[in-house]
Amino acid sequence: MFDQSLLPTVLRHDEIAFFDGKSIRVLDRRCYPLKKEYISVKSAEDAYWAIKDMAVQGGAPLELALRTMLLSYEKKEDLEKCASLLSSARPTNKSMANTLSDLLKRISSGTGIYDAVDSILDEYDEAYDRMSSYGKDLIEDGDGILTTCFAEHSFLLSLAKARMEGKDIRVYVPETRPYLQGAKLTLPSLNEMGIESYLITDAMPAFFMREGKIMKYMSASDALLPDFSVANKIGTLSNAICARYYGIPYYPFSLESSSNSNLEIEYRSGNEVLSINGCCITEPGAKALYPAFDIIERSLISGIITKNGIIYPNEIEK
Amino acid sequence: MFDQSLLPTVLRHDEIAFFDGKSIRVLDRRCYPLKKEYISVKSAEDAYWAIKDMAVQGGAPLELALRTMLLSYEKKEDLEKCASLLSSARPTNKSMANTLSDLLKRISSGTGIYDAVDSILDEYDEAYDRMSSYGKDLIEDGDGILTTCFAEHSFLLSLAKARMEGKDIRVYVPETRPYLQGAKLTLPSLNEMGIESYLITDAMPAFFMREGKIMKYMSASDALLPDFSVANKIGTLSNAICARYYGIPYYPFSLESSSNSNLEIEYRSGNEVLSINGCCITEPGAKALYPAFDIIERSLISGIITKNGIIYPNEIEK
Repeated sequence: MFDQSLLPTVLRHDEIAFFDGKSIRVLDRRCYPLKKEYISVKSAEDAYWAIKDMAVQGGAPLELALRTMLLSYEKKEDLEKCASLLSSARPTNKSMANTLSDLLKRISSGTGIYDAVDSILDEYDEAYDRMSSYGKDLIEDGDGILTTCFAEHSFLLSLAKARMEGKDIRVYVPETRPYLQGAKLTLPSLNEMGIESYLITDAMPAFFMREGKIMKYMSASDALLPDFSVANKIGTLSNAICARYYGIPYYPFSLESSSNSNLEIEYRSGNEVLSINGCCITEPGAKALYPAFDIIERSLISGIITKNGIIYPNEIEK
Repeated sequence: MFDQSLLPTVLRHDEIAFFDGKSIRVLDRRCYPLKKEYISVKSAEDAYWAIKDMAVQGGAPLELALRTMLLSYEKKEDLEKCASLLSSARPTNKSMANTLSDLLKRISSGTGIYDAVDSILDEYDEAYDRMSSYGKDLIEDGDGILTTCFAEHSFLLSLAKARMEGKDIRVYVPETRPYLQGAKLTLPSLNEMGIESYLITDAMPAFFMREGKIMKYMSASDALLPDFSVANKIGTLSNAICARYYGIPYYPFSLESSSNSNLEIEYRSGNEVLSINGCCITEPGAKALYPAFDIIERSLISGIITKNGIIYPNEIEK
């Protein structure tokens, strides 16, 4: 298993969701790294809003949800209702619904809830470890790597492991408007890990591809579809198309072994595009649109990195 | 000639650069439309900094430069030095150098400077009028149109004329980080003109192309290269590649009749990416990159709209 100290602040268990038996302390990622503030989650409803309002993002919602199940258990609340509420906070990513349903199954077959949560978290760490070993092998010495949003454990561990093998790498990080996860989560994490990295705007990846600076494109994915398309943060599609145009391979990581047939793309409020860190960027009354996820068709994907190895979608019969 | 009242605030002569014989009043586009503030340009050096620091952007620098030549003339300064200083403020777009050199030629062949400036501005209006008639003909009823940054007179007049012919159109406007010209100039202009428009982030165009919402991509261009590639605001390349992928035609407008052989891509300070409206978006010490322009190869261009008609780069022998 990987050394937990390889992980940056925002991926440490106690920063994501620290449960003291009565409430959960959660790092508020909306203002990180400008401020290190915590919110206190005292109910499943608090957790629902923390996820929906983006106080937790990028892998963290799942861990918060598992701790929230412990909280509901301590409060003797209905665990199925709690799981259902949490799963409804963001509709596109189905990992949470699947994981919480798995947790309920383990409990009903006799495992204690604390043991079940610990086992699930261990299994996730095991999956990250395996995925990042596959990811590390794809990274070559001298690579410039483009990413999108915050590609979490599997991506960051891949970089850490590649560097431990002496590979020289640098990462280009699109800021990821409107919530700026690239600027707020990925860039500070890479700096903390001592990996050379550059913030760019979401419009710049093609420029650096054309200049020959980018050799790989790697992202997380929020859902794996039955035809081996993936869903991921808005902007992933544009980068994948440009990568294909310049002959650069695109590798999304996928935590899912089973695929989702009924994907719902989350449309968030356009108002979230009209401001940045609470400051309005245009005139009042302007209209904006905010589809939160892209679907990237299988033909644009070089390989999907899973815990069981790399799936090559273009080599699979339809 | 087109009716000047078709133009939105930011393209009106007296808002761009109003000269009273002693100083030039310039709308500061960095804070527009949140605040309507003016700066006072009292020397060629003031004008140089207004252009370099992005107080004027999107077509306006040229008009400010012409008025600044009048100011230098009134102050009995060296006009060639003034032209050279202004042309050096932003290296990629060569229109200013060409236009100011044209002005100096007209003066040395006996035309009065005020008449020469008026003639040049009239010739620009004539060019906008012709280009927008070609642009208007490309727009079809029901079109969703993607643009980038602030595509100025030719684009906005094309839309106004298309609408006067009863064509139903809507425009998708990427915000254009880091300076947000899409949010600050294009979107308010379209709202002022009563044209249906939506702000999106720079990462979203491919999403709306995939959804079938975008039928045309139109932008300005900062330079026309000898091989019929164009240079334009960073982000244009990514959109042009995605448009090609989805079979959507891309039409840049070009004011230039002659092409530039020695193009210099302006790299601005990465610090301009690290903040938005003066607010830092990541931790101190982070590194960022800011290439300000893309080069879009001829194979991605469906047609270049010029005052003399549409050039089809792919039909021209290399």
